[in-house]
Amino acid sequence: MLTLQDLGEHALLQRLHRFCPPNLIGDDGAVLPLQPGHKLVVTTDVLVENVHFSDQTTSGFDVGWRAAAANLSDLAAMGAEPVGLTVGLSLPPTTPWDWLGTVYQGLIACSQQYQTAIVGGDLTRGPIATLAITALGQVQLSQVLQRSAAQVGDRLLVTGVHGASRAGLELLLHPDRAPASPEHGTAWIAAHQRPQPRLDLLPWLRPWQAQRAIAAMDSSDGLADAVVQICRASGVGAKLLADAIPIPLGLAAWVGPEQTLNWALYGGEDFELVLALPLAAAIALQDQIATATIIGEITPEPEVIVDNGGETLELTQASGFQHFNA
Amino acid sequence: MLTLQDLGEHALLQRLHRFCPPNLIGDDGAVLPLQPGHKLVVTTDVLVENVHFSDQTTSGFDVGWRAAAANLSDLAAMGAEPVGLTVGLSLPPTTPWDWLGTVYQGLIACSQQYQTAIVGGDLTRGPIATLAITALGQVQLSQVLQRSAAQVGDRLLVTGVHGASRAGLELLLHPDRAPASPEHGTAWIAAHQRPQPRLDLLPWLRPWQAQRAIAAMDSSDGLADAVVQICRASGVGAKLLADAIPIPLGLAAWVGPEQTLNWALYGGEDFELVLALPLAAAIALQDQIATATIIGEITPEPEVIVDNGGETLELTQASGFQHFNA
Repeated sequence: MLTLQDLGEHALLQRLHRFCPPNLIGDDGAVLPLQPGHKLVVTTDVLVENVHFSDQTTSGFDVGWRAAAANLSDLAAMGAEPVGLTVGLSLPPTTPWDWLGTVYQGLIACSQQYQTAIVGGDLTRGPIATLAITALGQVQLSQVLQRSAAQVGDRLLVTGVHGASRAGLELLLHPDRAPASPEHGTAWIAAHQRPQPRLDLLPWLRPWQAQRAIAAMDSSDGLADAVVQICRASGVGAKLLADAIPIPLGLAAWVGPEQTLNWALYGGEDFELVLALPLAAAIALQDQIATATIIGEITPEPEVIVDNGGETLELTQASGFQHFNA
Repeated sequence: MLTLQDLGEHALLQRLHRFCPPNLIGDDGAVLPLQPGHKLVVTTDVLVENVHFSDQTTSGFDVGWRAAAANLSDLAAMGAEPVGLTVGLSLPPTTPWDWLGTVYQGLIACSQQYQTAIVGGDLTRGPIATLAITALGQVQLSQVLQRSAAQVGDRLLVTGVHGASRAGLELLLHPDRAPASPEHGTAWIAAHQRPQPRLDLLPWLRPWQAQRAIAAMDSSDGLADAVVQICRASGVGAKLLADAIPIPLGLAAWVGPEQTLNWALYGGEDFELVLALPLAAAIALQDQIATATIIGEITPEPEVIVDNGGETLELTQASGFQHFNA
């Protein structure tokens, strides 16, 4: 099996350059145009083997796809169109070339779907596979989406189902626990392995942004986290209806309603947008976008609560992944 | 000793946010303006503990300083003014807060010296300290510096001494081998620990860039590597005079003339600019900038050679650091 140290740095860089637009390679940095009147948007993610991905649940292709998708989702949550991605890699010299090649294929496949490309990077050796992705985007200042823009009376709207990625992970870890309908399992695994950043939503928001700023965040760290963060940044609270949250087909039958709600709120990595916007805008989006659903309302009280069939739950960030806690 | 896992993610992020401009923190990405008519320039570096730095030779402050300096030097080599840096970090949970705090102090100290700031980042756990820095810059298209712009008859000019960083590293690894003059050793160590990206050169190049494109690269991978890369990209060769290459005061007396030339050509990490430009421009810069020195000439023959007192050496990239070779 051909490894990175078999190839050596020169041959390795030649292979990786094939994945990048030829006009951007071979100098100290890439030169990129922004559209006139647009601001630069930048966002960064670091992914570490055995922390964020493992061979058990994630192929090289999916490592690349998810890394690109997570960063493009952050751009979407800012209202920005992608301009390019940079890829900083640290890898053991014994890494098989095939694995790295498929990581790049995944990065490229996701980037191309959203009309963008890898515009730079660095590659060095290290004891464990680590990817640092920086996504560059552009947006007009009046079209920036910010967490702090929610107002009392706004509706909370999600752009798709929540809990599917967590269900897909469960199925990958426990393939013996297959659900009754195999198509459901396939859909959950797809949600986990090939998340779709919701850049497609941005044009639908533009007419409403001409009237007023819209609040948004992506749900990569969970729906509960996104709602809590929007409310904190805006100095408001929220009331959600558990029954209104769109959940994956077949999931409640597989793990029961309680686990389904838990995964929908705290599962994370669904990469949908969570928006707080005026009633008229929320209704219009719900009509225009098949998967868009109003799930609650912004309130003056600071609490973020969920009405679960009469029972009241308070949402927290506490169940989110705490990178540095024991 | 307070570690990152003692702090937990929330308190840790609060501490790190103090290092960043307050208006850029707390959303999915940073929104940054570019000046009208400017292109975006982006460059990325990944630094891994025990590969690129170690506790023996580099304090936390210097890890941060060098990481910022290396990326700002890449911007300088593109002719770009800095817009901001993003910092992607992966660290063991047992990392002392004091170390991370001093890394950020070093990043900030270097950034502030060049009127820029940390505009985003990510922090996650991992088995070994890894920094991924992306530098963002801006440049007018007519003022981009490119490796491929060298022309036959151009002079090669360096913006400062070469070999000092390598000498500083040697002294840090072998403190018992101190040179005759302690001030020389202090200067070499400073060159190694606190390199100065040559962004200060850019305004001096602008009048000449109005006439013709100038070729440039930084000498982070060694002076020989920079000259060879410029020649390859431009389809030309070069002839250097060994005696013309500016070397650190006292170095030849410390390690002899042969080792001094070797370190000047292949030592690396001096972070000066290597420029190929017309004779009149080279002479003017040599007059204007105290440390700028003409070291050779671009030739039609493809070889890159050094005249070392009558002996002819051919320059290669081969002695450069091969990240993935055994």
